[in-house]
Amino acid sequence: MAIARGYAATDASKPLAPFTFERREPRDDDVVIDIKYCGVCHSDIHQARDEWGNSTFPMVPGHEIVGIVRAVGSQVTRFKIGDRVGVGCFVDSCTTCAKRDLDLEQYLPGLVVTYNGVEADGTPTQGGYSDHIVVKEGYVLSIPENLPLDAAAPLLCAGITLYSPLRHWKAGPGKKVAIVGLGGLGHMGVKLAHAMGAEVTVLSQTLSKKEDGLKLGADHYYATKDPETFTKLAGSFDLIICTVAAEIDWNAYLNLLKVDGELVLVGIPENPVPVHAFSLVPARRSISGSMIGSIKETQEMLDFCGEHGIVSEIETIRMEQINEAYERVVRSDVRYRFVIDMESIKA
Amino acid sequence: MAIARGYAATDASKPLAPFTFERREPRDDDVVIDIKYCGVCHSDIHQARDEWGNSTFPMVPGHEIVGIVRAVGSQVTRFKIGDRVGVGCFVDSCTTCAKRDLDLEQYLPGLVVTYNGVEADGTPTQGGYSDHIVVKEGYVLSIPENLPLDAAAPLLCAGITLYSPLRHWKAGPGKKVAIVGLGGLGHMGVKLAHAMGAEVTVLSQTLSKKEDGLKLGADHYYATKDPETFTKLAGSFDLIICTVAAEIDWNAYLNLLKVDGELVLVGIPENPVPVHAFSLVPARRSISGSMIGSIKETQEMLDFCGEHGIVSEIETIRMEQINEAYERVVRSDVRYRFVIDMESIKA
Repeated sequence: MAIARGYAATDASKPLAPFTFERREPRDDDVVIDIKYCGVCHSDIHQARDEWGNSTFPMVPGHEIVGIVRAVGSQVTRFKIGDRVGVGCFVDSCTTCAKRDLDLEQYLPGLVVTYNGVEADGTPTQGGYSDHIVVKEGYVLSIPENLPLDAAAPLLCAGITLYSPLRHWKAGPGKKVAIVGLGGLGHMGVKLAHAMGAEVTVLSQTLSKKEDGLKLGADHYYATKDPETFTKLAGSFDLIICTVAAEIDWNAYLNLLKVDGELVLVGIPENPVPVHAFSLVPARRSISGSMIGSIKETQEMLDFCGEHGIVSEIETIRMEQINEAYERVVRSDVRYRFVIDMESIKA
Repeated sequence: MAIARGYAATDASKPLAPFTFERREPRDDDVVIDIKYCGVCHSDIHQARDEWGNSTFPMVPGHEIVGIVRAVGSQVTRFKIGDRVGVGCFVDSCTTCAKRDLDLEQYLPGLVVTYNGVEADGTPTQGGYSDHIVVKEGYVLSIPENLPLDAAAPLLCAGITLYSPLRHWKAGPGKKVAIVGLGGLGHMGVKLAHAMGAEVTVLSQTLSKKEDGLKLGADHYYATKDPETFTKLAGSFDLIICTVAAEIDWNAYLNLLKVDGELVLVGIPENPVPVHAFSLVPARRSISGSMIGSIKETQEMLDFCGEHGIVSEIETIRMEQINEAYERVVRSDVRYRFVIDMESIKA
């Protein structure tokens, strides 16, 4: 066992605080990663505060992890000491399932999430708000050499969460894609959809981030508080990706789709949202959901980001600023992702 | 002008009654059809009673029309006098639109529905509860020689309504398909999905029609009133087609889908139904809608039914029994489609 230093939530109502815990000795197929940066995802906050009702404590959040390989097990072939690597939302999955070769492990039973999860042997998982992590080789990603480590961290969750549906529903040249919400997820959606060659529209509550949105790669920017947006853009889009978890009227967005258009949810509102069949049937529209991506697809996304020089827009913080950062995420006061500099915990 | 004899609703609250009206003289591209049979669709009732709020009166319902060609215009090339033909839910569509070649005219603006609609020149359309109809050649379908005309009539709406989503979402060998509701639409879904080679399950409120369902081609039959059905079948299906217009809990059905499974609505409940994003996101499931099919796809469906000897299960009635038949449709007391014998109006 090695001692890890991190920050943990010890119960749902307390701020995160310094926390010392054990990481396992590396097995033959493990990679030991010296964590350099960890992104702050809104789902860290939901789980640290037990807002999804499935939290176990103490909990070290963090699943947008980048760092440098410190050691490798004897059977590790793809990584060596000094490599730039990343870890995303899960660190193991069902390996016996016949469906494994579909590269859809994120949707199958047996997934072991990076924190607030349990390993196959019953050990609770702890995430990236810590100085190091030990992860099976098959769940470690390579970070392209040309990407800065700090701004690459959010690719591991926010990046893949948008990349996967954009690819699955074939965003590209000739396709009109709308991104609802310009936050941590949405701003990655704009960059990725633009790089894929789609015509990109941001649908945000107001025009306050319009200048940013256009700089990030959007072709158009509309305020959803303006009812004219919904008449003007009716029947316009092939694909709409909704990154907001607020209970907005999905029917209004479905009406913005062309025949065969798809509304894809990547944010999860707390309560059910009423959907009218008339929003779907008369134009064969669909409403779907998408959740992160497979390991194979995550590496493909990182390589794509390397080719196109895509990283997240970040604000770097020290570990001890995490509780303040959580407050700012909750009030959407960040452009566009906080990343913790892990040197601050090692001093 | 030629005088047509039919049955019409004269307002939303009155029973249908004998009605005489004019059909246009055939134009160069028109086919005049001597109507032999017309199916009774639930949507006839919704519109005759103005339950969708868009009805104009007097209204001659009926869009499951089969008959024999009585005359053709000078430019008609595909049909001759004596041919067995059908007319479905629409009799014209936008011909200038660039999207026309997608063969998705049923979803595009400019569609002229067979009754309760308006032709491009402003003339109200009147449907198949009548002795003859005049229709543009491009909207007339060929009925395969081996299919009985009476039982083929419901293919023109019920048949294509199920065929189109089964094809679009790739029902076939190795696919598990569930049909929700075993009525006029559902029983066609069972026959068609079975003929396509899919493994077919009927999900009906009770087991009262189980014997029928298995005879029609279902491999399995479950009662949705039994809560065990929803635990036993969780994650089972590639495709579920919901033919019921009642406000059932779509989330319970979404949970029966595999990863990437599709729930397709062909019935339209009056009110919005609450959908939880958790029913979609963690398995990339979709909820979609589908509406009839294009002319090209309708002919493909008729040819498929000819090859496989598929027709509807019908109960033939005389025209004057229509109001009684409506009452029975509303209480689901028909196995599985009423078809009006139009000889009864010509006597």
